[in-house]
Amino acid sequence: MIEEGERVVLIDERGRKYLVAAEPMQLHTDLGVVDLSTVIGQEPGARLKSHTDKEFIVLRPRITDYLQKMRRVPQIMLPKDAAQIVAYTGVGPGDLVVDAGTGSGALAIFLGNLVRPNGHVTSYEVREDFARLAEQNIREAGLSDIVRVKLKDIYEGIDERDIDLVTLDLAQPELALPHVELALKPGGHLAVFSPCIEHIQRLYQELPKYRFTNCRTIECLVREFEVRPGATRPRTRMVAHTGYLTFARRV
Amino acid sequence: MIEEGERVVLIDERGRKYLVAAEPMQLHTDLGVVDLSTVIGQEPGARLKSHTDKEFIVLRPRITDYLQKMRRVPQIMLPKDAAQIVAYTGVGPGDLVVDAGTGSGALAIFLGNLVRPNGHVTSYEVREDFARLAEQNIREAGLSDIVRVKLKDIYEGIDERDIDLVTLDLAQPELALPHVELALKPGGHLAVFSPCIEHIQRLYQELPKYRFTNCRTIECLVREFEVRPGATRPRTRMVAHTGYLTFARRV
Amino acid sequence: MIEEGERVVLIDERGRKYLVAAEPMQLHTDLGVVDLSTVIGQEPGARLKSHTDKEFIVLRPRITDYLQKMRRVPQIMLPKDAAQIVAYTGVGPGDLVVDAGTGSGALAIFLGNLVRPNGHVTSYEVREDFARLAEQNIREAGLSDIVRVKLKDIYEGIDERDIDLVTLDLAQPELALPHVELALKPGGHLAVFSPCIEHIQRLYQELPKYRFTNCRTIECLVREFEVRPGATRPRTRMVAHTGYLTFARRV
Amino acid sequence: MIEEGERVVLIDERGRKYLVAAEPMQLHTDLGVVDLSTVIGQEPGARLKSHTDKEFIVLRPRITDYLQKMRRVPQIMLPKDAAQIVAYTGVGPGDLVVDAGTGSGALAIFLGNLVRPNGHVTSYEVREDFARLAEQNIREAGLSDIVRVKLKDIYEGIDERDIDLVTLDLAQPELALPHVELALKPGGHLAVFSPCIEHIQRLYQELPKYRFTNCRTIECLVREFEVRPGATRPRTRMVAHTGYLTFARRV
Repeated sequence: MIEEGERVVLIDERGRKYLVAAEPMQLHTDLGVVDLSTVIGQEPGARLKSHTDKEFIVLRPRITDYLQKMRRVPQIMLPKDAAQIVAYTGVGPGDLVVDAGTGSGALAIFLGNLVRPNGHVTSYEVREDFARLAEQNIREAGLSDIVRVKLKDIYEGIDERDIDLVTLDLAQPELALPHVELALKPGGHLAVFSPCIEHIQRLYQELPKYRFTNCRTIECLVREFEVRPGATRPRTRMVAHTGYLTFARRV
Repeated sequence: MIEEGERVVLIDERGRKYLVAAEPMQLHTDLGVVDLSTVIGQEPGARLKSHTDKEFIVLRPRITDYLQKMRRVPQIMLPKDAAQIVAYTGVGPGDLVVDAGTGSGALAIFLGNLVRPNGHVTSYEVREDFARLAEQNIREAGLSDIVRVKLKDIYEGIDERDIDLVTLDLAQPELALPHVELALKPGGHLAVFSPCIEHIQRLYQELPKYRFTNCRTIECLVREFEVRPGATRPRTRMVAHTGYLTFARRV
Repeated sequence: MIEEGERVVLIDERGRKYLVAAEPMQLHTDLGVVDLSTVIGQEPGARLKSHTDKEFIVLRPRITDYLQKMRRVPQIMLPKDAAQIVAYTGVGPGDLVVDAGTGSGALAIFLGNLVRPNGHVTSYEVREDFARLAEQNIREAGLSDIVRVKLKDIYEGIDERDIDLVTLDLAQPELALPHVELALKPGGHLAVFSPCIEHIQRLYQELPKYRFTNCRTIECLVREFEVRPGATRPRTRMVAHTGYLTFARRV
Repeated sequence: MIEEGERVVLIDERGRKYLVAAEPMQLHTDLGVVDLSTVIGQEPGARLKSHTDKEFIVLRPRITDYLQKMRRVPQIMLPKDAAQIVAYTGVGPGDLVVDAGTGSGALAIFLGNLVRPNGHVTSYEVREDFARLAEQNIREAGLSDIVRVKLKDIYEGIDERDIDLVTLDLAQPELALPHVELALKPGGHLAVFSPCIEHIQRLYQELPKYRFTNCRTIECLVREFEVRPGATRPRTRMVAHTGYLTFARRV
């Protein structure tokens, strides 16, 4: 049963989502106004009506809902790329993670959700405004116990030790390598996200100086399909490039 | 400290991996013979020598190591695709999952690792030989408490209720839809893997008959790069197609 | 030397192109007004100034300029796809081609340019407005002697014989197959463009009934790159799908 | 009617091609022996039998047949990429082309076929063994009047002037730029093929020093499909990278 103040997702007839709180407020949509106090006491799956009699379904949010709806700085790592970090490093429950830079916290939240309940994510950010925004997003996703934002330049050093995974989404990831080597436990993974090829070229100049093996660089492309009777085809346009992902394992 | 009988990963100088047990056995490689009893009592990161004086590094295995080294039936879902299920459904710690068919258990193990320690995966398989192989792989990955293989045809029904995620890798996923609708909790996700476009076409003929929203079909392509001084380029050949992934959410 | 009435391309400082005639007219651009009568008597490569002293370079147009600048109906076959017809069929000077439907004539013009001076393209179109538009585009590209638009439904029959290449961009290409078999010379090629997978599925149901070999279906994807100092990367967005191309050879 | 000594293509029942001469010789295949003297006097489309009664169809070769069957040095430019040069530069009948390096002549032959009957291709090659092989391939494709191999280092200079298209497939294309600028007519195109990203990076450092506009770099990917009843899907593996193509236009 949904309690007062709890966060919920409403889905309208077209599949559009609204991330709101169950509280005495009104949600204004182009399908009419929904009285959010009527959400309190409902079970997930319940149907509400807007004042124009349009149906909205009440659901408990999943992490994907928070990630889609959170406030963000211009560029965030997309789930398709964050997911490849799971594929290549096996990050999961109990892992200790260091992340930099935080940005709006999208990757830290994604990873924080996966390392619950015993793991931890420390996310380094130098810009105070980004750190504040990320902390708010982390709180709304209910991950304040798991993800901590640290206002510090990771090029200056990493305080944590015995880390399972370090993720870097920075302009000069190569400057963090000496600290990453110290922070990672043997067998721990490094994952670096780089929009441009020059970042990778510089990274690979430095990587051989440190104790890493299994260095790999990939690009992940996701094509969406339109499946309609008699008219099945890939979408006309797609996101063709977000960035390259480089993985390496500490030995 | 590594104890007797514990599973470990050895990595040789070329980055090649060996998944073995710390016990009085010998590992024969093209870089010489390693006495595995010497692994006992070591810390992760320790270096061993083969009888030809080649170095091997000892690590604790991660889930990715188990997935790479497990015995498998011809076709398994690749991590790049399994990871997209994380991206689109947010599956994570505590989730209840139903999976079919099990095959060698690769996807069940991947998901089982992510829903630890309080979640659960029930994996349906009709072929007893596959079920036995999968159970062995699950045991070796240390996930027997989390992942259970059920010898049953999922087209006949799903026993579980209030499920967060159902994953289907079957010839006729549309036959499982009535059972999936009953098994999923409101807001729960369905993920279907289909190598051929005709599977998707049949699936979309049936999907509108059930309570699903946000139906999407994607294809995930991963390109690997060779990054060498003066010679950076995508790999000449790649896996161009494994299958399509279709996602839908129960309302 | 450029003569009065001749078509020319002007390129401004940003690389933007204008396809105009050398005649007493004015070209109005956001970089100022250019007096087109000053083009007469110039050599290709000459530089003109607009009234705001911006430079424009005069060039003789190539077929690519005509194709980029022609008036078109919503969907035209892109050069990337038209070019694959060259790659797979070897269409070139002297070839006899039948094309349907004409649309705005983009493919007929592309092919007409390649079969010059002794080849010929007959392009079938059922809509009179499209046929008129295409004829105008063909005239402007200087290909009236090579490309003829025929106002006829190709499903009713093909009048030509001993053809090297038939290209079909139609909703039901399978209906043209009996006529294509009669029109093509032995060794001649069929190329079919289909936006949706269902077109291909229907085509392959019918193809085995006719005398074709080497049936192949491809999709051509072109990624553009941004090459900037320190910031080289694929473009963020791309055209991900235009259509599938199916090739078959008459035996 | 096929004359003695003429080159023909035989296609067997599986679609496999044989490029042979109509002369008193025997073709030995795994479907039996074909007496090639029986080809003389036949019309294209005629059917022959091997001594094991398997059918072979006689066709006149097209340029694609020569390109597929010619002797080649390890790496040749694939038709998919050569065709993009048509798409971006509009190369066609009557054009004057300079090409370097020749290699086995694949690109020179492809372009020579397109510029017939009044155009010309001069192809620069420094290795005498490659030049000899290319000349033989050009002769067999019947293009000796159109394509000439020049044993000269293009880094030393280009003798030709008023050229429509220069194609470079070289380790250091940037060294040819001053000569390309002199050789190209205003409005003429440069097309550079580069397997590695570093080639492009060096090229773009030099390009701004010369009179070029509309610089673009692309990558062309071709996916093949398997279309079978109930089992339509992209091929499992594909050629994921051959090289990048950079285009620029002389002003």
